[in-house]
Amino acid sequence: MKVVTYKRSSFMGVQKRLGLFLDEKTVIDVNLLWQADFEHQGFYSPENRAAMFAPKSLAQFLRVHQDAAIPMLQDTIERYKKFMQAGTLKTLNGADIAFHLHDVKDVKFDAPLDEIAMYRDFYAHEKHVKKGFEKRKEEVPPAWYEIPAYYKGGNTGFIGQDDIIPWPFYSQQLDYELELGVVIGRDGKNVKAKDIKKHIFGFTILNDVSARDIQRKEMSIRLGPAKGKDWCSIMGPVIVTYDEFNYEEPNLLMTASVNGEEWSRGQSGDSHYSWGEMIEHMGMEEWIRATDFIGSGTVGTGCGLELDKWIKPGDKLELSIEKIGTLKNIVGTPNPKP
Amino acid sequence: MKVVTYKRSSFMGVQKRLGLFLDEKTVIDVNLLWQADFEHQGFYSPENRAAMFAPKSLAQFLRVHQDAAIPMLQDTIERYKKFMQAGTLKTLNGADIAFHLHDVKDVKFDAPLDEIAMYRDFYAHEKHVKKGFEKRKEEVPPAWYEIPAYYKGGNTGFIGQDDIIPWPFYSQQLDYELELGVVIGRDGKNVKAKDIKKHIFGFTILNDVSARDIQRKEMSIRLGPAKGKDWCSIMGPVIVTYDEFNYEEPNLLMTASVNGEEWSRGQSGDSHYSWGEMIEHMGMEEWIRATDFIGSGTVGTGCGLELDKWIKPGDKLELSIEKIGTLKNIVGTPNPKP
Repeated sequence: MKVVTYKRSSFMGVQKRLGLFLDEKTVIDVNLLWQADFEHQGFYSPENRAAMFAPKSLAQFLRVHQDAAIPMLQDTIERYKKFMQAGTLKTLNGADIAFHLHDVKDVKFDAPLDEIAMYRDFYAHEKHVKKGFEKRKEEVPPAWYEIPAYYKGGNTGFIGQDDIIPWPFYSQQLDYELELGVVIGRDGKNVKAKDIKKHIFGFTILNDVSARDIQRKEMSIRLGPAKGKDWCSIMGPVIVTYDEFNYEEPNLLMTASVNGEEWSRGQSGDSHYSWGEMIEHMGMEEWIRATDFIGSGTVGTGCGLELDKWIKPGDKLELSIEKIGTLKNIVGTPNPKP
Repeated sequence: MKVVTYKRSSFMGVQKRLGLFLDEKTVIDVNLLWQADFEHQGFYSPENRAAMFAPKSLAQFLRVHQDAAIPMLQDTIERYKKFMQAGTLKTLNGADIAFHLHDVKDVKFDAPLDEIAMYRDFYAHEKHVKKGFEKRKEEVPPAWYEIPAYYKGGNTGFIGQDDIIPWPFYSQQLDYELELGVVIGRDGKNVKAKDIKKHIFGFTILNDVSARDIQRKEMSIRLGPAKGKDWCSIMGPVIVTYDEFNYEEPNLLMTASVNGEEWSRGQSGDSHYSWGEMIEHMGMEEWIRATDFIGSGTVGTGCGLELDKWIKPGDKLELSIEKIGTLKNIVGTPNPKP
């Protein structure tokens, strides 16, 4: 299944809501489907019950349903099909429980996970890591082969499909990073690699946008990136749920193009560490939570730094991952110093 | 004012609640005070109104009141004094709106800030930084003098006064770090140094507990600490609100002792960067939020690593900061591998 957060105008301003693709062009509004279903089942207050049971926010949905989220979305599709057969596709207060993308002009897609508990970004692709250390005239440290390292990123700057990438006033050198992202659907502590089936909700495309000039300074101090990353990251356009990969770690073709020209190409499976190893490592003696978000680290060739090629204002970025889709953004012009 | 989260037993299990010291020994339950006040003012549902207006959780309290939190707590004390004069110190359903510490045997103090949006820990004390790089046989990187660097820490492992420090199964070498901590009380983006009066709620003691063996590996990879820090941090016992320092950056004596012997001694003001500089830096192009928590970085001599002295299971740690108090914890025995 493909899960989105879609944005659509209303008299209350632009609304952000959890959507579920039925097919290429049809999006079910999960909350409205359940509202209609509760009406049909004869509950007094279907709107209030749906608000709690099938919240319009994916983050709230995952916190409520945890590892039952995937079966619940499968059930949502089955129930939609029954409504289709019955020919009743509206709630009692007049909302469509699904819409066709070609019928609705003002729909946009936001970052599909609307709130992130903690964002961790690994560094698991050896080719990318080697290039980075080579640029600093250093060897890859032995520890990189011992433990799956990651940094913790900001969680307030996420944007989604077609959003303009803000260019922070303090940087002269922006870069993209092509990564596979994982959304955690279930809480756990000391989670074992063999049990990650229960904990992964789905996969998405991650662009871990970077301000290389300040990041270079930060990395020299060894505390990891901060202002070099945290103002903006991009995910989307959809989350593909783990059942689509038969609950097995996928090996997906990943490409990035700038203004239509391919700059990056790699395979998600070309990683030194598996998702099982990474999730087991990060969860040692520590809570992982539904709505945590994880990046794989940049795939080999997956950023301008490796290629000595640099994006500039107005550039059109397209990051594609097989079976997920294409994440498209335009690079913004530098913000004035506030 | 001194703000705490206190823990006390009830038939519903141990409850965690926001408390405010009236004097050395008297703690006002902020939520119950407002419940009584709303009863007195003649509202229909004082308990429900108090739950929203004066939540029992400090994190919720800050999210609701933002930079009005300090005046609101001052008002809480004024209203308590009126109740004292009137001699009515109970709610209608029989709760005491304050208690004396010597009257109540089962009170303990938790980490005063019960939920943290983001935890950032700076590295602002040159003496500590120099020792760290010296141990790696490196010079302090020039960037350290250009930007106030920080790492982002985990926010699920915070514990408070008298809690046992969990010893993670994967480490052989734990350490303490003596730091001054700041609680952010107001949201903002691109906050200027001159405006931090509005954004700081108060100061507390921070022990940024560290697993040095795995941290050493992590630092060599340059992404900052993760498993070396995130399983446990300690704050408390109280937050001293910013008005107590006349909304000026304090310069406080900081000491740490192990089993009664002083190991660490420094001054919070002996920092290369001011709080204004640190907060302005971290907020560039990025949201800071009420309930964010910030560490100053370890004060010079403020950890065992600098001294080549190492804590062991059963050790009694006491971290003291002038005008705040003493944060006491016992080092636990190593957890079995799960």
